Amino acid sequence: MGERQRERRRALAAAVEAAGADALLVTRLVNVRYLTGLNSSNAAALIRVDGPDLLCTDGRYAGTAEKVASDMEIVVDRSTDGTLVGLAADAGAETLGFEPHDLTVERHAELAALDHGIAFKPLGHLVEELRVVKDEGEIDLLRRACEITDEAFEALLPSIRPGITERSLAVELDRHMIDFGADGLAFDTIVASGPNGAIPHHSPGPRELASGDLVTIDFGALVGGYHADMTRTVAVGEPADWQRELYELVRRAQRAAVEAAVPGAEYRAVDAAARDMITEAGFGDDFPHGLGHGVGLEIHEAPLMSPRTTGKLVDRVPITAEPGVYLAGRGGVRIEDTLVARTGGPELLTKTTKDLLVL
Amino acid sequence: MGERQRERRRALAAAVEAAGADALLVTRLVNVRYLTGLNSSNAAALIRVDGPDLLCTDGRYAGTAEKVASDMEIVVDRSTDGTLVGLAADAGAETLGFEPHDLTVERHAELAALDHGIAFKPLGHLVEELRVVKDEGEIDLLRRACEITDEAFEALLPSIRPGITERSLAVELDRHMIDFGADGLAFDTIVASGPNGAIPHHSPGPRELASGDLVTIDFGALVGGYHADMTRTVAVGEPADWQRELYELVRRAQRAAVEAAVPGAEYRAVDAAARDMITEAGFGDDFPHGLGHGVGLEIHEAPLMSPRTTGKLVDRVPITAEPGVYLAGRGGVRIEDTLVARTGGPELLTKTTKDLLVL
Repeated sequence: MGERQRERRRALAAAVEAAGADALLVTRLVNVRYLTGLNSSNAAALIRVDGPDLLCTDGRYAGTAEKVASDMEIVVDRSTDGTLVGLAADAGAETLGFEPHDLTVERHAELAALDHGIAFKPLGHLVEELRVVKDEGEIDLLRRACEITDEAFEALLPSIRPGITERSLAVELDRHMIDFGADGLAFDTIVASGPNGAIPHHSPGPRELASGDLVTIDFGALVGGYHADMTRTVAVGEPADWQRELYELVRRAQRAAVEAAVPGAEYRAVDAAARDMITEAGFGDDFPHGLGHGVGLEIHEAPLMSPRTTGKLVDRVPITAEPGVYLAGRGGVRIEDTLVARTGGPELLTKTTKDLLVL
Repeated sequence: MGERQRERRRALAAAVEAAGADALLVTRLVNVRYLTGLNSSNAAALIRVDGPDLLCTDGRYAGTAEKVASDMEIVVDRSTDGTLVGLAADAGAETLGFEPHDLTVERHAELAALDHGIAFKPLGHLVEELRVVKDEGEIDLLRRACEITDEAFEALLPSIRPGITERSLAVELDRHMIDFGADGLAFDTIVASGPNGAIPHHSPGPRELASGDLVTIDFGALVGGYHADMTRTVAVGEPADWQRELYELVRRAQRAAVEAAVPGAEYRAVDAAARDMITEAGFGDDFPHGLGHGVGLEIHEAPLMSPRTTGKLVDRVPITAEPGVYLAGRGGVRIEDTLVARTGGPELLTKTTKDLLVL
């Protein structure tokens, strides 16, 4: 992976130069990981327009840093950002870019007070913008995470029956993901049964599943830092007509969004492909969130697919498509896949059936 | 709990007034929870020297906010901090305090650009300082979290045997905590066996336990937002002399720290009670972290108990005492309790035996 990280740093250095800075102090940990390969709770990187890039971390991660970022200069110090500011100044940097969405007002003031005679310049979301388009190595990790997600769901099916609690289902699903090889969970698993299905981010609780419930399960595996995200809604016992109709509506809307997710499509047009269908059926107000979001080293990352965001999909951008309809007191349906926008057509990474499962 | 939150807000308002501001914009979510009772991923509070306090959150949490903070004015808007800045200005505030350790440079600039003619003033860690001393309701939640932690460890003991992987042990322990009533995990469980015990924050992996291992298990339950934190090191099979001696050293050091944790004691003196003993035995360099930390709504919070921190314990401050010795390539021992500094002597919340368990 070292080669890929080096390419990312060179692309970033060009953007830093174009923004009029001599270097960028990268403090957002997920961005440090993206640029260096180091997954640490205390690290910062200095990406320089000229000359070698630096990675600073504390003693706990020094050995790992030397291994994963062997082509960078590794600096071991507990005060990672402060150390790199000093080294940037020593190397003659006059204007140092920083990540204003990560650095707090307090830390910014502390770094300025080090008084190295360097000018600090906020440089926006440069690394996040680079991260939108994934390389095939990243997509491989997402694909693997989604495979485990599919396998775990299939293994869970026999347990989805009246009497089991939401919490037990969630714990069992989590265990399956680990057993099938996940490094961890992409996020806290959602199991929302019956009326709880009307709450988009319901935490699994003591409620027992009952015949006649729709059950929404939203979960994903984490592999190599990359996050899978899938939702399926299943029926416990024979569903009522309104449940079947709601399911088919959301299913058609989700399919329309997946088909619309092609390079060149506006984010809001992909959202609208699903939303218009739901609105025409009279449920527009019951779909209160965006269609989906980018996935990668974070479970939610750019681009946000919503009616309010501007921009266009390009090749190799993984996103989720997850329309939902939530009816207070009655229940809800959400169907979600992780997919990759591709020139040849969307690549679906989560492959579990979207036929309504009646369990 | 509403009464307790109101008291906290009145104490905070006095500190805000003393700092020369008309109100404090609280954006750090854990601080919002502490002051209002609302656990939300999108909320902010405005604590005013004069007049009613405001709580702003989005539609997902509006119902909960009205229930838990019925004595506050609830404002429903997705842009929580921006909305509260506008309302503070409308109410005549001239100087608005903010949390500089939470607000990013980017968000601070965006709020200033709203151009309400209000002066922003960084007000340090006012809420965190209030949070150091717990009320008995908070200690009750910590006590319950620690009980579940003890129960889960006892339930795990039969599984600690040669051949089981670190990861399986961690998953089983997590499941026990949920089954015994935890709302979740206080943090990612650590299981470090054999040579992995030399890594203070080892992630449980595929290594199988073997006879002759020391195994360090660091974990805790989460109850009502409050975090338990306990570590025990056990022996798989009869330990070697050096393992038994290392264990007894750490055990004596840990006991000395617990006994030193009385109101009036300097943080660094509590740290030194354990550290001096370990240093005298020749292992000072192998104890590379502080003795412990405050616990409450965060797993790590003030006060930090280390050789470099200043301040004194007072009544009703929960902390951890967790000395450890780590020998590269060989293994390690860490023993940790959560306890409360009390005028009458430390109250131990984690009660699992600290005799060396040979399994």
